[in-house]
Amino acid sequence: MLKDEVRTLAYRDAIMRNKHVFEGKIVLDVGCGTGILSMFAAKAGAKHVYAVDCSSIINHARNIVKDNGFEDKITLIQGKIEEIDLPTDKVDIIISEWMGYFLLYESMLDSVLFARDKWLVEGGLILPDKATLLITTIEDGEYKESKHGFWDNVYGFDMSAIGKLAMREPLVDTVNGEAVNTKPQVVYSIDILTVKKEDLSFEVPFSLRSVCNDYIHAFVVYFDIEFSHGLHKPVTFSTGPQAPYTHWKQSVLYIEDMLTIRRGEVVEGKLSCKPNARNPRDLDIVLSYEFDGAISQSKGTIEYHMC
Amino acid sequence: MLKDEVRTLAYRDAIMRNKHVFEGKIVLDVGCGTGILSMFAAKAGAKHVYAVDCSSIINHARNIVKDNGFEDKITLIQGKIEEIDLPTDKVDIIISEWMGYFLLYESMLDSVLFARDKWLVEGGLILPDKATLLITTIEDGEYKESKHGFWDNVYGFDMSAIGKLAMREPLVDTVNGEAVNTKPQVVYSIDILTVKKEDLSFEVPFSLRSVCNDYIHAFVVYFDIEFSHGLHKPVTFSTGPQAPYTHWKQSVLYIEDMLTIRRGEVVEGKLSCKPNARNPRDLDIVLSYEFDGAISQSKGTIEYHMC
Repeated sequence: MLKDEVRTLAYRDAIMRNKHVFEGKIVLDVGCGTGILSMFAAKAGAKHVYAVDCSSIINHARNIVKDNGFEDKITLIQGKIEEIDLPTDKVDIIISEWMGYFLLYESMLDSVLFARDKWLVEGGLILPDKATLLITTIEDGEYKESKHGFWDNVYGFDMSAIGKLAMREPLVDTVNGEAVNTKPQVVYSIDILTVKKEDLSFEVPFSLRSVCNDYIHAFVVYFDIEFSHGLHKPVTFSTGPQAPYTHWKQSVLYIEDMLTIRRGEVVEGKLSCKPNARNPRDLDIVLSYEFDGAISQSKGTIEYHMC
Repeated sequence: MLKDEVRTLAYRDAIMRNKHVFEGKIVLDVGCGTGILSMFAAKAGAKHVYAVDCSSIINHARNIVKDNGFEDKITLIQGKIEEIDLPTDKVDIIISEWMGYFLLYESMLDSVLFARDKWLVEGGLILPDKATLLITTIEDGEYKESKHGFWDNVYGFDMSAIGKLAMREPLVDTVNGEAVNTKPQVVYSIDILTVKKEDLSFEVPFSLRSVCNDYIHAFVVYFDIEFSHGLHKPVTFSTGPQAPYTHWKQSVLYIEDMLTIRRGEVVEGKLSCKPNARNPRDLDIVLSYEFDGAISQSKGTIEYHMC
């Protein structure tokens, strides 16, 4: 997390610019890692911070917290949030950096919701409090060919079976903002204060209007994050193709067809996402699209597996 | 493996340029992946190839083998080499791409040795048959500072505890050939036809002579591979800093000190390597060095853990 400046600075700003919110408060840090968010909270005046992580990284966090003089303010607890005891009944604020690729892949949001329902005081805050999933499309002919065409002739052998397979996996990569050719659309918004675990499986429609005459080779999904509820000075950041780099990059869903689209034409579709039944840290993603343009017409339903 | 041209072409050349060796032979491919080595062997005239992999990738290999018309020549077997049965008593040739970072990390060499001792006919061949580990040193002040110095002040916090930890992990990265400042030295050679599993834990001395006046910030370890025993047309490749890129890159062992070395001066030392007791796929590496130069003197012993 530390080397991704966009995210770390967003958390720092959300906490340090809203010190009045943290002063004298009990804070819970879900998945604390090296403890940096807990130290921001302590520095912002929190009465006490409970920092929980199941990884052995917590031993290093303990050294770091001590090296920075916060050992009286921050209690580090190793364990799963679902299994540990806290030496307090309630917490005033939950902070967590739980987001994964495609927002929900390998995510710890379930753990944040568990912590919220068990410990967060009525009217308490969660940072961040809002996550928004967006979708758009891109022209990406050259890369699509290099990535998927590669398998048609591998040192003289036909490995197209692998190429088809590779297409069924969202590609986490940085998309050039100039390749985006429809107006991005919000497809799903999550209010962390109220969302239920079952809401994290969803199917939502989209309708994307082209901003130029172009080809569509892939759909692109990314997310924006808000720290706003209960804060005087809200902070947001985006992981979109037009925003500065984050380690989340974007998720590219290639389609087999290529759509030839004219400015103002619309691609309709549906995006669904749910945890994989066998391995809930994986995501099953289904994208359906339908396009009836002046030059090309196409429809398709593709199942992707993010694992 | 497929996208690393250096390694795939080396295997292809070693097999296809030595067709006379493969003609009419029974071949075993240990850890076959997508099956490309098995297909090279079949194309080179092998009588039959048994291709073994414990991963479910073997299902895709099955499709690929069929798509390329080799289903009568190649038998795919899913399972651990230590647990499967082969429908043959002996094989004439073992092929395997078993090398890991630092040659031995996560390596499958143990499985190759098991297969050799159980199935390889007397006088049979193994491709590759020789692996050589080399060591040298580099000037790398800027990167060392950026990598390890980063932790001294992370958004205002002292995280040097992590910096020290990061230094105990070999860094797998591409080293600029121009940064090399001592003559590389072979520290360990493995003859795959005769090596025993216990020989893969070793401690060896080195003595590195500087080729210029420079600073030493790190030691660098890499390996060379030979396909030569029993072949008319031997093939070799290197993963060193002076050779073309491979996905193995090089392994960089940073030291806390910096040595100021003059042309012709020598750094003496020892390198030891053994599988980690708890997790044998990890490596415990110990580097000792002693330098008594005209300008600087230093010695140290550093334990690295590759996991």
